[in-house]
Amino acid sequence: MKHPFFNNNGPFKLIDLLKDFKLKITENLDNDLVTDIKDLQNSDKNHLTFFHSKRYYLQASKTKASYCLTFENLKNYLPKNCKPICVENVLSVISQITSKFYPDAINDDFDNTVKKIEEINFHNSIKYGHNVLVGENVQIENNCLIGHNTIIEKNVTIGSNCSIGSNVIIRNTIIKNNVRILDGCIIGKKGFGFFPHRKKNIRYPHIGIVFIDDNSEIGCGATIDRGSMSNTIIGKNTYLDNQIHVAHNNIIGDNCIIAGQVGIAGSSVLGNNVMIGGQAGISGHLKIGNNVQIGGGSGVIKDIPDNSKVMGYPSKNFRKFLKDNK
Amino acid sequence: MKHPFFNNNGPFKLIDLLKDFKLKITENLDNDLVTDIKDLQNSDKNHLTFFHSKRYYLQASKTKASYCLTFENLKNYLPKNCKPICVENVLSVISQITSKFYPDAINDDFDNTVKKIEEINFHNSIKYGHNVLVGENVQIENNCLIGHNTIIEKNVTIGSNCSIGSNVIIRNTIIKNNVRILDGCIIGKKGFGFFPHRKKNIRYPHIGIVFIDDNSEIGCGATIDRGSMSNTIIGKNTYLDNQIHVAHNNIIGDNCIIAGQVGIAGSSVLGNNVMIGGQAGISGHLKIGNNVQIGGGSGVIKDIPDNSKVMGYPSKNFRKFLKDNK
Amino acid sequence: MKHPFFNNNGPFKLIDLLKDFKLKITENLDNDLVTDIKDLQNSDKNHLTFFHSKRYYLQASKTKASYCLTFENLKNYLPKNCKPICVENVLSVISQITSKFYPDAINDDFDNTVKKIEEINFHNSIKYGHNVLVGENVQIENNCLIGHNTIIEKNVTIGSNCSIGSNVIIRNTIIKNNVRILDGCIIGKKGFGFFPHRKKNIRYPHIGIVFIDDNSEIGCGATIDRGSMSNTIIGKNTYLDNQIHVAHNNIIGDNCIIAGQVGIAGSSVLGNNVMIGGQAGISGHLKIGNNVQIGGGSGVIKDIPDNSKVMGYPSKNFRKFLKDNK
Repeated sequence: MKHPFFNNNGPFKLIDLLKDFKLKITENLDNDLVTDIKDLQNSDKNHLTFFHSKRYYLQASKTKASYCLTFENLKNYLPKNCKPICVENVLSVISQITSKFYPDAINDDFDNTVKKIEEINFHNSIKYGHNVLVGENVQIENNCLIGHNTIIEKNVTIGSNCSIGSNVIIRNTIIKNNVRILDGCIIGKKGFGFFPHRKKNIRYPHIGIVFIDDNSEIGCGATIDRGSMSNTIIGKNTYLDNQIHVAHNNIIGDNCIIAGQVGIAGSSVLGNNVMIGGQAGISGHLKIGNNVQIGGGSGVIKDIPDNSKVMGYPSKNFRKFLKDNK
Repeated sequence: MKHPFFNNNGPFKLIDLLKDFKLKITENLDNDLVTDIKDLQNSDKNHLTFFHSKRYYLQASKTKASYCLTFENLKNYLPKNCKPICVENVLSVISQITSKFYPDAINDDFDNTVKKIEEINFHNSIKYGHNVLVGENVQIENNCLIGHNTIIEKNVTIGSNCSIGSNVIIRNTIIKNNVRILDGCIIGKKGFGFFPHRKKNIRYPHIGIVFIDDNSEIGCGATIDRGSMSNTIIGKNTYLDNQIHVAHNNIIGDNCIIAGQVGIAGSSVLGNNVMIGGQAGISGHLKIGNNVQIGGGSGVIKDIPDNSKVMGYPSKNFRKFLKDNK
Repeated sequence: MKHPFFNNNGPFKLIDLLKDFKLKITENLDNDLVTDIKDLQNSDKNHLTFFHSKRYYLQASKTKASYCLTFENLKNYLPKNCKPICVENVLSVISQITSKFYPDAINDDFDNTVKKIEEINFHNSIKYGHNVLVGENVQIENNCLIGHNTIIEKNVTIGSNCSIGSNVIIRNTIIKNNVRILDGCIIGKKGFGFFPHRKKNIRYPHIGIVFIDDNSEIGCGATIDRGSMSNTIIGKNTYLDNQIHVAHNNIIGDNCIIAGQVGIAGSSVLGNNVMIGGQAGISGHLKIGNNVQIGGGSGVIKDIPDNSKVMGYPSKNFRKFLKDNK
């Protein structure tokens, strides 16, 4: 599948992609062509993927990618169709190669392709406020409302019956139907991902998007960052309160209720019907089950199984928390 | 008293309001007319109110409402003037009935009644920046400043000598004199209140307003939501720092000092001279006394009596906290 | 050195500055002239400074100021060149005197000197969006980008190759080269500093600025307040994620990485290479060493020595935290 938003500069010869990294490659790769770069789950034939943590061994064992950057000690998890390419720093190499495929996805300078919405031929069921700006490759379906001073930068799709507030900024995002984005949200900017370097950190491209499913609501002043390799997803009928931060690559399920000022660090997966109290924080790379309830102010640093109710920092069973703190 | 901002579609016959809920009503209500819907304290004759938690028994016992939606086990707290109407889900029924009275208060789509401030005949002691928008039913008193890109949506009253910053959005709010609202605040949007429903949550109307009293200051990027049935109130000479979230129905007293990133969940009451350190969180439906000091980062989940100094999560006496954590 | 941004109304005769405070002054000060007001470290000959806490005795002992407001019990720390002026409330007196020198620095009303950027003769290597406003005394170097609706108020210097996002507000700030300020930031407003007073709090002037050094990045929706007497500083190559609040007078070193929703209360000093996890809070007036790592959600209320790794609220050694919370 073609990337919906970022231009793919590929295909590249695998050997050309690897030549900067001084790898000892014994096989003959002269004819191998890489058409795209994807995460383990979404890769297909002729794609390059990466596998950098045992945590993802299940996805690795099923990947359809033809090539995978990985570590020596992980390569045996990969299936036969996937040729391992062992490197010392998987994340650094993948990011540099991704930059070749998608150079537009590294920086988020303001979109200078935008025009005043009056200058664009949208159908007339869209109602918009003063000073609305719209970039290239933007689609807006029927009966949408777009508030004052809102900027829909390039690469945005908005379904029907959506209400976008005022002072909102959106880019690289797909919004489905009946979604409400309240005032002051900033959605779809690159995540907080880079390789620290003493003189000048090295940013890596964020080719993921933000996807917000039907009937959801995003509260005032929320920030939802787009993913690096995969997407940041908000499920159906999920409501976020004000001042929430959803970092890159998070997947939030359906029917979740997330109260004000919650922060969700990157690459976590939340199930359906999750309820999170105000100011709680969820660390990165966690799996939060279905029907989980997390008390306000909690700090979650471990996976939480389905149907649990937790509280505290670090969070534990809420009865235990209340008993321990009598 | 007429609602200052939302149109009241009433009066309605009580029997018409109740007919959708399949209630067994033994009395003859054919002639009973309901003129408005209010909370226990603010109700008057011919008003409908609701009483859903024993926590509010004192207010219930004194209500002047003629009718009250309540539970079977609470009805005996009500005074003689008030006819109990027992239902299984008080909050759901009250919200559906409120929607009949105030259908405009359910959603917060952008205000398309706004005009450029230059097009409105304000007296000339108001100084305003570029691109200021003002909606219907807005009053602004003498010597006010309104910053650039600020949107005063419909239903706002601003007293004299107020300074409103840039990129601010205000609606459904009464601001008294000498108040400062700093840049980027969003004030008066509906609270985060709805009935969870698997396919599509049911929003309820927010007919409360935000009231900000004399000499107060609201820091940059704060969000203050309006109340559902009652109002969200910030007292006199109370200062809020940046990035604070005040949810619906909270009442904050006079001379309070609230540091950055604090979050106050809904329906809590804070006394006068309360000091709250940065990032502290206050749960919903709590009573925080006068002269209370709450340490930064605390999580308050219980009422706090007057003159206390607390810290921790859950918060406890600050000396005990420091001793326990030596 | 002349203040880069605020007009100095001095010099004043010392005796005139002090006459409102009913001090018993035995020396003859008739000819003493005060040219400026500075903190202990940055003062010079003929300057007035202040010393109100033993915590700063080292700086006090080396100050070059000619006069110092202090307490009776601290005056002996001062060097011979510096004449102590003992008062009962150092901070109150210094703020009132600072107001005489710098009356413009008390309030932050919106800047009504701004013009549309098109009306200003910037060199043509600046690219800017729609509706950009620029105030007086603003310099922008080569190859900068300024996003839509952004307001560069008066007293701002931006170095070369900077990218400023949309909906940003900046004032009283020096930004060096290759800096990125993402969407929705509010930088340079006065800090949350005032003397509580029952009827009407007394604001004091903030004559510090915000200084952001080369190669840094400030995430979406961050607020960075300018200092009161000293400056708020972000070091080189330091990255801040979204929704961070940096209060007045903080100094953050080089190569720091600060995750989303962190709050740093006033007057703390962070070393180089400090890493802070999401939602952590740092209290005021602390010293955080070099190479310190602070876990997400932590509440730091004590100084942290170099090379430490801490977690928890209050924060402690992270191994101890994990062990205590097994």
